[in-house]
Amino acid sequence: MITSSSNPRVKQVVQWQASARERHSTGVFVTEGFKLFQEAPAECLKEVYISREILDREPVSSRIWEKLEQTGYETVSAEVFRKMSDTQTPQGILCVAGQPVYRLEQLLQAPCPLLTVLEDIQDPGNLGTIFRTGEGAGVTGIIMSRGTVDLFNPKTIRATMGSIFRVPFIYAEELREAIGSMRAAGIRVYAAHLAGEKYYDQFDYKTAAAFLIGNEGRGLRQETAEAADEYLKIPMEGRVESLNAGVAAALLTYEARRQRRQQA
Amino acid sequence: MITSSSNPRVKQVVQWQASARERHSTGVFVTEGFKLFQEAPAECLKEVYISREILDREPVSSRIWEKLEQTGYETVSAEVFRKMSDTQTPQGILCVAGQPVYRLEQLLQAPCPLLTVLEDIQDPGNLGTIFRTGEGAGVTGIIMSRGTVDLFNPKTIRATMGSIFRVPFIYAEELREAIGSMRAAGIRVYAAHLAGEKYYDQFDYKTAAAFLIGNEGRGLRQETAEAADEYLKIPMEGRVESLNAGVAAALLTYEARRQRRQQA
Repeated sequence: MITSSSNPRVKQVVQWQASARERHSTGVFVTEGFKLFQEAPAECLKEVYISREILDREPVSSRIWEKLEQTGYETVSAEVFRKMSDTQTPQGILCVAGQPVYRLEQLLQAPCPLLTVLEDIQDPGNLGTIFRTGEGAGVTGIIMSRGTVDLFNPKTIRATMGSIFRVPFIYAEELREAIGSMRAAGIRVYAAHLAGEKYYDQFDYKTAAAFLIGNEGRGLRQETAEAADEYLKIPMEGRVESLNAGVAAALLTYEARRQRRQQA
Repeated sequence: MITSSSNPRVKQVVQWQASARERHSTGVFVTEGFKLFQEAPAECLKEVYISREILDREPVSSRIWEKLEQTGYETVSAEVFRKMSDTQTPQGILCVAGQPVYRLEQLLQAPCPLLTVLEDIQDPGNLGTIFRTGEGAGVTGIIMSRGTVDLFNPKTIRATMGSIFRVPFIYAEELREAIGSMRAAGIRVYAAHLAGEKYYDQFDYKTAAAFLIGNEGRGLRQETAEAADEYLKIPMEGRVESLNAGVAAALLTYEARRQRRQQA
């Protein structure tokens, strides 16, 4: 059992929790809690830490123990665990997982692609929710601009509720180039934009489609929007000027899913 | 100019920021920033505080100054302002506003009601987003269970982006009674529920409709769901078990709006 906070492995986990640069240089991220432990494919898990003292406060299912035997684990004291944890009320289980790696080509070659493309989303919770909702809507991939908040941020990971392990994604070095590649691959690219004249439910998304969603504060950059095939508008009543980025992504991807379901 | 943090008005604002009980006992709440100052009807504003030192860092539009002359304002030092503020980077303008008060009957008597009904939503950001999206979708009112987080929480207010001033709402002492009143008023009540057999886009929302949305962690209480006319299901691909409450509310209310728009 690890009982010292100065243990090098403990210090390394604390750095991974705090620093995107540390995570990227080693290609890992940290997940906490039962849900994410269960959702993680065993082969992604590099290290698992538990605190018996915290874990044993609630009954732990036998499936958790089976998986723990499969992955192996290290026991740490409750005090050390709290040091490693990013949450207020840790559940007593924390994993170091390898960052999934995809290539743009994989995302473009999915059967009938449905892509969400994010420009500079800044809120970790928003990004996580977009992954969760995206999986629910059946998106085949998520493409993020380089300026998007780090997906492996602990808050984002929590908000994905496990979708991080299942939705293919890439960070695009140059978002406009990636949009060009999508169009070259026959994917129709739609920009959610106030200048759109047609409503989002007036297009046909039954063939390959991608939705561009802009930053929370300023929306899409004009040059990014112009790289799309079409502008679309989400109607807004009252005095609302824009919707939350996660809400916009949900409305668009679920509209595509609705159309595809009716066709099926 | 107020320069002391022990000024009783300053201390009162700090209490209003921190305590739901303080806000409720006096029927006020605090808004920060230009956006909310502009969105607030002048007659709702009871007190306005500005810090010239912070305010003058950015050019302030003449419309803001016109409104400030209309409402009147008190100047405070930058140090005092930071004490009063709930944000990391205050904009230098803070208002005390009266809490809007509505009655259930008003909400039931709207032309062709479209209501969002929330049970025990706990995340302030979620609640604010539901107001913002709700206004965008044209909901005629939002009904919250007593156990829902305080709408006048500073985080919630920020997330509403001003919709707090325009979307009618009530906290229902007994949510099931309120649902009964809705049904008695001819409003069809739909519960978003995993046991739903029909998808959310297979119902007709062109007449009066209300959507029940449950708590983030545990969904709707069974007895609340049973008070509805119908269960509906939002389809989910992959291994997603539920959607974020704000996302679910957005999908349902925008589907109702889509149907009503096509009818119009």
